Amino acid sequence: MGKYTFEQDFEGWKEFSALPIHERLPLFFREGRIYDVLFSQQFDRAFLDALYVLTNRIRRIAKSREGMLWLHGLHAHQRAMLYFVQPSTRTFLSFLNACHILGFHTSEIRDPQTSSEIKGESPEDSIRTFSSYVDLIIMRHPKEGFAEKTAWLLNVFSDRPVPVINAGSGRDQHPTQALLDVYTLQRSFEDRGGIDGKVIAMVGDLKRGRTVRSLSYLMKNYREVRILYAAPPAFQIGEDIKEFLCSQGISFEEHDSLESVLPEADAVYMTRIQDEHDVQGESQSEYAEFSLRREHLERMKPTAVIMHPLPRRGEIDVMVDKDPRAMYWRQERNGMWTRCALISMIFGSDETILEEGERFLR
Amino acid sequence: MGKYTFEQDFEGWKEFSALPIHERLPLFFREGRIYDVLFSQQFDRAFLDALYVLTNRIRRIAKSREGMLWLHGLHAHQRAMLYFVQPSTRTFLSFLNACHILGFHTSEIRDPQTSSEIKGESPEDSIRTFSSYVDLIIMRHPKEGFAEKTAWLLNVFSDRPVPVINAGSGRDQHPTQALLDVYTLQRSFEDRGGIDGKVIAMVGDLKRGRTVRSLSYLMKNYREVRILYAAPPAFQIGEDIKEFLCSQGISFEEHDSLESVLPEADAVYMTRIQDEHDVQGESQSEYAEFSLRREHLERMKPTAVIMHPLPRRGEIDVMVDKDPRAMYWRQERNGMWTRCALISMIFGSDETILEEGERFLR
Amino acid sequence: MGKYTFEQDFEGWKEFSALPIHERLPLFFREGRIYDVLFSQQFDRAFLDALYVLTNRIRRIAKSREGMLWLHGLHAHQRAMLYFVQPSTRTFLSFLNACHILGFHTSEIRDPQTSSEIKGESPEDSIRTFSSYVDLIIMRHPKEGFAEKTAWLLNVFSDRPVPVINAGSGRDQHPTQALLDVYTLQRSFEDRGGIDGKVIAMVGDLKRGRTVRSLSYLMKNYREVRILYAAPPAFQIGEDIKEFLCSQGISFEEHDSLESVLPEADAVYMTRIQDEHDVQGESQSEYAEFSLRREHLERMKPTAVIMHPLPRRGEIDVMVDKDPRAMYWRQERNGMWTRCALISMIFGSDETILEEGERFLR
Repeated sequence: MGKYTFEQDFEGWKEFSALPIHERLPLFFREGRIYDVLFSQQFDRAFLDALYVLTNRIRRIAKSREGMLWLHGLHAHQRAMLYFVQPSTRTFLSFLNACHILGFHTSEIRDPQTSSEIKGESPEDSIRTFSSYVDLIIMRHPKEGFAEKTAWLLNVFSDRPVPVINAGSGRDQHPTQALLDVYTLQRSFEDRGGIDGKVIAMVGDLKRGRTVRSLSYLMKNYREVRILYAAPPAFQIGEDIKEFLCSQGISFEEHDSLESVLPEADAVYMTRIQDEHDVQGESQSEYAEFSLRREHLERMKPTAVIMHPLPRRGEIDVMVDKDPRAMYWRQERNGMWTRCALISMIFGSDETILEEGERFLR
Repeated sequence: MGKYTFEQDFEGWKEFSALPIHERLPLFFREGRIYDVLFSQQFDRAFLDALYVLTNRIRRIAKSREGMLWLHGLHAHQRAMLYFVQPSTRTFLSFLNACHILGFHTSEIRDPQTSSEIKGESPEDSIRTFSSYVDLIIMRHPKEGFAEKTAWLLNVFSDRPVPVINAGSGRDQHPTQALLDVYTLQRSFEDRGGIDGKVIAMVGDLKRGRTVRSLSYLMKNYREVRILYAAPPAFQIGEDIKEFLCSQGISFEEHDSLESVLPEADAVYMTRIQDEHDVQGESQSEYAEFSLRREHLERMKPTAVIMHPLPRRGEIDVMVDKDPRAMYWRQERNGMWTRCALISMIFGSDETILEEGERFLR
Repeated sequence: MGKYTFEQDFEGWKEFSALPIHERLPLFFREGRIYDVLFSQQFDRAFLDALYVLTNRIRRIAKSREGMLWLHGLHAHQRAMLYFVQPSTRTFLSFLNACHILGFHTSEIRDPQTSSEIKGESPEDSIRTFSSYVDLIIMRHPKEGFAEKTAWLLNVFSDRPVPVINAGSGRDQHPTQALLDVYTLQRSFEDRGGIDGKVIAMVGDLKRGRTVRSLSYLMKNYREVRILYAAPPAFQIGEDIKEFLCSQGISFEEHDSLESVLPEADAVYMTRIQDEHDVQGESQSEYAEFSLRREHLERMKPTAVIMHPLPRRGEIDVMVDKDPRAMYWRQERNGMWTRCALISMIFGSDETILEEGERFLR
């Protein structure tokens, strides 16, 4: 983006972006319906419950050829663009296939260098141009807050806005990852009263991991959840999260070993020690201790589930994959279904799915 | 393309390419219908009028879900390839979505390095290979004349030729950009007698800008148009264009300020000072003077339209975007619709659209 | 892949991969039907005959708009992923368009750098993730045996395996290239008793060429074929192939000139002297002697066919393209049709095509 030498000054953005989040949120809803999906703060219990009923429904409809073809018809008249200027194959493919399931025609930007930005165009203009061709923008961008700015711009400046879904921006927000994590918990505990009252262990690099932070926040939507954080002291969960949990009355414990959280946990959420941030490999030694191996399996509850946002490196031995409690591959696929449900909520096809989709259930 | 060390010698190409353009054109038409779209010289008034009637029709059909799905059916049995070995996200996405609206399955080449050219294949062989899988090739290539050579080759050598659309070749031709510019003028003046008799101001780098050159040429198809060229003296419109306008009896004026053309213009076509060609930043100072800002708006006719081929840098202040006369975002979207119309003309679905499409109009 | 520092140890893979090929093959078939397509050793005469009947049928159905739309419906409820981390535009586009003909929604990975591998994920995990979104994986990978390992892993470890098609792995296997070559022979000799009893000349770099090796192996499925190998002595066919042919009772001759094989050949299969492997350009002088030029055409049988796996450089003069015996462009297109047939066999839509597709034949 070497040629981009001026900052475009959109009147009103500075004021808007300085507002506290609860004053910004209403712009991203329309008629009581979520329109732009930008932060996990947009999700309350009613939303989550509705989303998961819908996700289950879509997943079941898709089991038959007839059901899948019916789903394809829902948005076959619409077009989505995936603007992924930060590499993320996994999230990209999950969204792309979700779009295909709902029938969208799709176009892709996956390399910032193919973009007009090299001609000196502002990223805001690029997005607005692209928005003029499609009905939905799904965006991953390295710059924090860029998805929100785009959504604001389209809502305020354009006479043809389209919804924006944040598929990860900077280190900050990745709201659909949080959705699929909670859905995986919900689905796993479906026959045991759902997430309320469960013990969730989170293991690994809790300090820097975006997913454990979001997941912790979303637990406020459930009753009597208890969180066990297991991490090397230098990688423990941040003070801000602990303050948040206290303010919400959510109980949590800090542990410094994996073993100590295994016996009690209903879910073990493993994460990666992000040693790409290391200067001198200081995580290497911790790495091994917070890895789940076959010998750990017998210490876990028979009903517990093992999750991981993936990609993994050594945190979970591949031989654990065969254990029926390993949910991380299903978790991936849940991401696709959750994203289908989210998109259909944005466009209001959720009601059609719940009403007319009935007939495809086996 | 380091390995490509021999030049393939196609018998007849040298002779063909040496012919004057009016002797080459017939090869690219079939049964009175445009087949390969290579130069703006292929467009006469009858063609432009027909194209714009069709564009309006498609745009209106697409407003309803039913209409859009009907359009998707027109070419659902066909496949298009977008061969964009020169980066151009904007034109690429416009064509891709146009293809999707008409129902084509699409495949993409967007990076010359993924091509077989690295194995030493000639570009002509690559294209001929790709043409064997699809029904339409849309091509952007850095080499001037390459689209024409490809079209010639397929017409003369192949027993299964497919149409070729030039989506920009070198600095020379970008015929569909010209189509969308003229369509935007046409649509803007629809209720005021069309383009005939209007005053069109073209502003910025007129010397090097491909779009203003093409647009000037196409004005020969309209009656009593007057062109006002506003540019720093060093960037004024070329002598060849002026000679052409004189020969066609089109009146024009040269101005050295933006302000002086604003009061009279029915359309203000802004372009970018292309300072990427500058050696020592000599355009910087001119840049500011030929930029449209909010204070200019009150000097323009209330009915005037503001256009820009985009991408822009500073030539139009973002706050101008909110003025109802700002047409450049609509101009982008017009590009998609115009390209739909063009493709349907090539394949003869235009008649179906005009006849059977009637029922989708509201 | 700099971050990928550990080798995942899947229990059982070492043992499986050490088995002789005939003991590994059964894993890749299901209920008598091919499931994973990995090696040309999976193709016997019955398979080849059935595949070509099906290919002919698909090709004929696709000639009409109605037929093509019907084909699109066969797999419209399914999704395929093309994972091409080694560049190959030609094979990529051939498969992609085959998928589109059968109605699959497609997603693409074409650049290893967009992959999660940069975050340290093992390639096996990446593929398993991607497999969770789709119904079919078509894979080109630089590492020999990687497609087989993937197929093994999905079959043995995943509770939701999907078929894997090898679209070229390392220098070893490219089974669908062999399929299209044999189909082109079959189709060319359709009215003359098929491949049995024909004389096939193979010309060029026979030592290093993967395609001539596979084609030679597959000739064991036909009766009384005679192979003429024409190559510079340093590039002659390998001893292992000659031993194989002897063991199968297939007769062959070695020639050191192109001219000497032309009069007798029913098919002349030209290949590229792969001088990208040359250190000092030692192939340059041989290059010219094993190139087919117009003056050679009159020495060939009037019924002979000229083939080439493409890309070519100088081995076939472009002016030969106009000769009706030049089959290499059709051979390309045959690749697309053969791949359609193969995919439909994997999924069992072959029976539908043979039974219900009847009505689209003209």
